[in-house]
Amino acid sequence: MPDELIAPPGLKGIAVADTVLGDVRGQEGFFHYRQHDAAELARERTLEDVWTLQLNGALPPHAALIDPGVHRTLPDGVGDLVDSAADCMVNPMSTLRVGILAVADREGRGESLDRSEAELYDDALRLAAVVPTILARHHRRRLGHDPVAPDPSIGHAADFLRMATGTMPSSAAARAVEQYLVATVDHGFNASTFTGRVVASTGADMAGSLVAAVGALTGPLHGGAPSRCIEMIDEIETPERAAAWVAGALERGDKIMGFGHAVYRAEDPRGVVLRAAAETLAATLGDAGEDLVRRAAGIESEILAALAAWKPDQRIVTNVEFWAGVVLELAGLPRAMFTPTFSVSRSIGWSAHVIEQVGVGKIIRPSARYVGPEPVVSEPV
Amino acid sequence: MPDELIAPPGLKGIAVADTVLGDVRGQEGFFHYRQHDAAELARERTLEDVWTLQLNGALPPHAALIDPGVHRTLPDGVGDLVDSAADCMVNPMSTLRVGILAVADREGRGESLDRSEAELYDDALRLAAVVPTILARHHRRRLGHDPVAPDPSIGHAADFLRMATGTMPSSAAARAVEQYLVATVDHGFNASTFTGRVVASTGADMAGSLVAAVGALTGPLHGGAPSRCIEMIDEIETPERAAAWVAGALERGDKIMGFGHAVYRAEDPRGVVLRAAAETLAATLGDAGEDLVRRAAGIESEILAALAAWKPDQRIVTNVEFWAGVVLELAGLPRAMFTPTFSVSRSIGWSAHVIEQVGVGKIIRPSARYVGPEPVVSEPV
Repeated sequence: MPDELIAPPGLKGIAVADTVLGDVRGQEGFFHYRQHDAAELARERTLEDVWTLQLNGALPPHAALIDPGVHRTLPDGVGDLVDSAADCMVNPMSTLRVGILAVADREGRGESLDRSEAELYDDALRLAAVVPTILARHHRRRLGHDPVAPDPSIGHAADFLRMATGTMPSSAAARAVEQYLVATVDHGFNASTFTGRVVASTGADMAGSLVAAVGALTGPLHGGAPSRCIEMIDEIETPERAAAWVAGALERGDKIMGFGHAVYRAEDPRGVVLRAAAETLAATLGDAGEDLVRRAAGIESEILAALAAWKPDQRIVTNVEFWAGVVLELAGLPRAMFTPTFSVSRSIGWSAHVIEQVGVGKIIRPSARYVGPEPVVSEPV
Repeated sequence: MPDELIAPPGLKGIAVADTVLGDVRGQEGFFHYRQHDAAELARERTLEDVWTLQLNGALPPHAALIDPGVHRTLPDGVGDLVDSAADCMVNPMSTLRVGILAVADREGRGESLDRSEAELYDDALRLAAVVPTILARHHRRRLGHDPVAPDPSIGHAADFLRMATGTMPSSAAARAVEQYLVATVDHGFNASTFTGRVVASTGADMAGSLVAAVGALTGPLHGGAPSRCIEMIDEIETPERAAAWVAGALERGDKIMGFGHAVYRAEDPRGVVLRAAAETLAATLGDAGEDLVRRAAGIESEILAALAAWKPDQRIVTNVEFWAGVVLELAGLPRAMFTPTFSVSRSIGWSAHVIEQVGVGKIIRPSARYVGPEPVVSEPV
């Protein structure tokens, strides 16, 4: 079709939807959820407050506070299926997709196209609320442990840690993880959010949209892996060894995990919040915790200096993953659960985007440009 | 970001990727797979031939024939998980997603970003090949029947029917379904194919891309429901009742299933092929089969006439779903399996698109336009 418009590769810089849910201002190193500075929310507010903001449109007390606690419990039969999935599959993100599909199917949550606004809201809240329960159950099952049932009386972040580790976390650990979760609820039109919205645009159900988004999040070019940053810190060990390590990595053409971002030119505000969260948590943990934070900070400085010397005309900044890995490590989460933890918060963001997209009521269906040889047209049969 | 480009709603008419896999020429009522008229392929070729074309780049004997038979068998443990999923969930498309994730996870099929070309090809073949096995097993389990193991010695279409119904199909039934499958392997840049490519662009694994695409296919605005057309034929019953039925539906503002298409202005070539397939199959089935085809043809004419009178300046044509429903009904497939059958063929198309997208090596990450109120910027803390 010669009259087609050709989009730039990767649709970079093309606005494909309108949103009121938030925005990322890369040049300023600033992002917000519905007008509210997201870094400030991470410092000041609970995850439930921010969940309320995204789903109910305003922060408490201006909107009724969401209480996800009662929604964390899995319906009958789904726990058994999650266990079977965990027995069969190593990857918690696979079991997560099974669990989301099962909750939706068992509860008869229908296609979004046919759902009322109230029903769609219920779907959003319910399916994001079960994410920590499914992930923690998978993790414990793989270790041969019994599942820990949700406790509706405690916060979402604390209960996730409790269900995953089997122990009630310290309030400092729960709060640090909560700050991570608040800071990662949403972040512009990343690939997983976009995926969820494309699926939602077909009128498919909330579960199908979230499951598709989980798939995109597992992509190394998107969700990345906070665990790879902490492994890098392990490997470098001390700031003194960082310069040589970075030089070797750059020589081999390796990517330095935890640095650089597609959008941010100024500092990634999530990195700033999470560094402070790591310091606060480490102060409650004694020498081992403080040593990790000290080494991480030193290694960060050395890597930034090396990157600045390597590409003096570019500003390469610490991204969210570097300090996220330190926070989750200090909070006692196993490294296999780092990327899954990202989905605990981002599923809240995805579900709000699905609601917004269903409201548009139009399928997202771009074109492709056929660049092969001309088709062979034969005589009519 | 004021310097952003704003895309038309739904990205309509925007080419977001280059492809050599095929093209749809809506004005001409023509579509092709890698240069080859797809309707002709449906008339002349097997599904395995067309699978070879899409994955190996040419039709046999110019490329080595793909034999999916040996790949249809599920690995150890996955059959049990599929059974657990079928016990828990009504929707075959949910169990399908579970099964695809499980095959990939158990076999350690890694993230596409890290896969060699040969490994990615293996993933594409393997994961599309298990689709009929998973779907048929779900269906039989829901009915309380034991699964039927795949038979590598027969064709993919025949074996799907055999595994789903428990009986070896007639060659006429197998061939009619095969024509449906060939005609629906690919169709331009529909929403599910696009979804699969967005997920693939993150470097996620083949399974994650296919599972996301399945989700988009379940959307009523995309995959539609061939079963709804056959239900409409049931309801109208005879051509004599069609005009009044359509008038009533238009008055109520109901959508007429099986008519109209986003791209085709000339006849949908798939409809033409499938009508002929239905007639050929019906001729082997005696009175009941021939009666259904006769009624369907009469009802189709009446509906087309009514639609032409209703919108004289628009050309509304029969789409793929109308005759697809008749073919699948005549072949003895239960209606709950109509949309799942679509995924048997389309998964072949998706997997070829995933390979093509991975080759691009660039994440698809558009923007959104923030249209809410200006963010509240507070004093630095």
